[in-house]
Amino acid sequence: MVALSLSRRLRRTPFSEGVEAAGVKAYTVYNHMLLPTVFRTVEEDYRHLKEAVQVWDVSCERQVELRGPDAGRLMQMLTPRDLRGMLPGQCYYVPIVDETGGMLNDPVAVKLSEDRFWISIADSDLLYWVKGIVQGYRLDVLVDEPDVSPLAVQGPKAEDLVAAVFGEGVRSVRFFRFGVFQFQGRDLVVARSGFSKQGGFEIYVEGSDIGMPLWNALFEAGAAMDVHAGCPNLIERIEGGLLSYGNDMTDDNTPHECGLGRFCNTQTAIGCMGRDALLRVAKEGPVQQIRPIAIDGAPVPPCDGWWKIKAGKRVVGRVSSVAWSPDYNTNVAIGMVRMTHWDPGTTVVVEAPDGLREAEVLESFWH
Amino acid sequence: MVALSLSRRLRRTPFSEGVEAAGVKAYTVYNHMLLPTVFRTVEEDYRHLKEAVQVWDVSCERQVELRGPDAGRLMQMLTPRDLRGMLPGQCYYVPIVDETGGMLNDPVAVKLSEDRFWISIADSDLLYWVKGIVQGYRLDVLVDEPDVSPLAVQGPKAEDLVAAVFGEGVRSVRFFRFGVFQFQGRDLVVARSGFSKQGGFEIYVEGSDIGMPLWNALFEAGAAMDVHAGCPNLIERIEGGLLSYGNDMTDDNTPHECGLGRFCNTQTAIGCMGRDALLRVAKEGPVQQIRPIAIDGAPVPPCDGWWKIKAGKRVVGRVSSVAWSPDYNTNVAIGMVRMTHWDPGTTVVVEAPDGLREAEVLESFWH
Repeated sequence: MVALSLSRRLRRTPFSEGVEAAGVKAYTVYNHMLLPTVFRTVEEDYRHLKEAVQVWDVSCERQVELRGPDAGRLMQMLTPRDLRGMLPGQCYYVPIVDETGGMLNDPVAVKLSEDRFWISIADSDLLYWVKGIVQGYRLDVLVDEPDVSPLAVQGPKAEDLVAAVFGEGVRSVRFFRFGVFQFQGRDLVVARSGFSKQGGFEIYVEGSDIGMPLWNALFEAGAAMDVHAGCPNLIERIEGGLLSYGNDMTDDNTPHECGLGRFCNTQTAIGCMGRDALLRVAKEGPVQQIRPIAIDGAPVPPCDGWWKIKAGKRVVGRVSSVAWSPDYNTNVAIGMVRMTHWDPGTTVVVEAPDGLREAEVLESFWH
Repeated sequence: MVALSLSRRLRRTPFSEGVEAAGVKAYTVYNHMLLPTVFRTVEEDYRHLKEAVQVWDVSCERQVELRGPDAGRLMQMLTPRDLRGMLPGQCYYVPIVDETGGMLNDPVAVKLSEDRFWISIADSDLLYWVKGIVQGYRLDVLVDEPDVSPLAVQGPKAEDLVAAVFGEGVRSVRFFRFGVFQFQGRDLVVARSGFSKQGGFEIYVEGSDIGMPLWNALFEAGAAMDVHAGCPNLIERIEGGLLSYGNDMTDDNTPHECGLGRFCNTQTAIGCMGRDALLRVAKEGPVQQIRPIAIDGAPVPPCDGWWKIKAGKRVVGRVSSVAWSPDYNTNVAIGMVRMTHWDPGTTVVVEAPDGLREAEVLESFWH
């Protein structure tokens, strides 16, 4: 691993003090903010995530807040997913596309009330797109980045831990729903969601001042549950097929290529950007798509660029994320594969930095 | 320094291979891309930059390209600087603001022709703002990020080195102008500009495939000039008062607060975003402004967050960038200071992580 030079531009979070005290070993940068990537080792963090409970500083999931009479209309303009059935208290995974259907972000929208949303974003300045749209269309809505920093609690014991701090009521919060619960007299949005397949919650910590008090409360309450600081885990997210914007997809890709066609209701999501392009894509279908790929051989080196997927001399795709999986005893990978080679069971060759590898396109992710 | 976990999301550049071979010691992340920060030590790099010539991988200065009949109109909508006098072949430093006059980016605009611009951006996804505006106003212009990666040549011997590779013609390129010069049969924009006060050029390398050939050609031609790989240098840029978006200013700040009021011609820049707010600001003047600050005592630790500037118990500003300057034998800093304490010679106290320091607000930067 290389060194990272710190500066104010790579923003610290309300939980940075706790993250450092917990012995963070490495970071990435996400939405101009520090995101931990390793505490013990990626493998130890992985094992622990699947067995116990972790507290994750995911402040870098910044919020774009929409507030005002046109908030609902704007939210629907931003995504091809039909939002007519979305109620306050619900979270929706929403592809956000430009006018050509290219992915700009793949956030979770949180409907706080009929005229107020948070968009919990992946790694791109979605705020700029939304503000530009609002200006151009002269919508009656305020858009900004509030002082809200998500703290995730993930793992099989997550519900017990969150209940210990916020009360038993959190147990009845359903998947991709949220409730409002109190901490130190403050109302906080607590959603059943998170960037792992182990289950858990995301607490939308409103007000940086209560960041460390909440962090500490979770660690005190979780002492007997083997709670540990953690972070989105590379191995676990690939096993579970959780996509990462900027890694597995960019603005070159349509939602359909990313396997997100089911979130595109272009016939009914009236007024959404990219409608014309996506109607065309829906009609013809994509020519490449995200697939799980098992790469043979010993553990591969880290993937810091796209690795070509080849069939003979032809390039038929790219691998974008890969890690050795101790549980599945293979290199698990996410790749974009052309139609000619995307059928499950197809054998391809991956150009890893240390040489060519046999690989197989699979039917479904590992989780 | 902490470790950085690499992934495809933190994009490599056309010159990464050369940067690694030159022994890069640390990176930052800028526009989702790797930007080197240290080769030997920050101090050695600084000394060498002032005495010889360096080649900098500043690919992370991504371009937003505007192309089409409305390109000129759009460019003027984006900035309060009056662009009527801007000719093809010129580069303009242009504050970009939102509707409230808050800074979204502080790029350099490059006018390629009457209907084609590149905007060479600081660290925020300006592409998203521009695309949003274009959609909302239905402008007849194509906007995208082309395959253009700037390579800077900086230092007192920069002109000799660039002339050795591109020919003597580059010597007649004036400051913030560009010419088109050939390399391996390809036309490249070569501008006299760069993020240092030592003079030099920025080569807009169009086509990733010629990245390493050009890198190698510069190092071969510069062997006798003590050419070395370098990068924007923290000490030198603070001495010279070169601002860094995300460090010294954010979207909370107006151009006037950043000392960029001279680039705001809100009376004549017809149709620019933020006009109403900036007219008000121009009338009343800002209540805080960027200032050079000399901080007493031994070299301060790295600045990874804003340090409070105090007068008694009152907070009167913040320090955003700081480094020990060997040439000026003091800690040189950039800060935002309130009107009550911004007069040159004012003594204030800075809350550094290792304790309180006496500091002085200065008239002008060191260079």
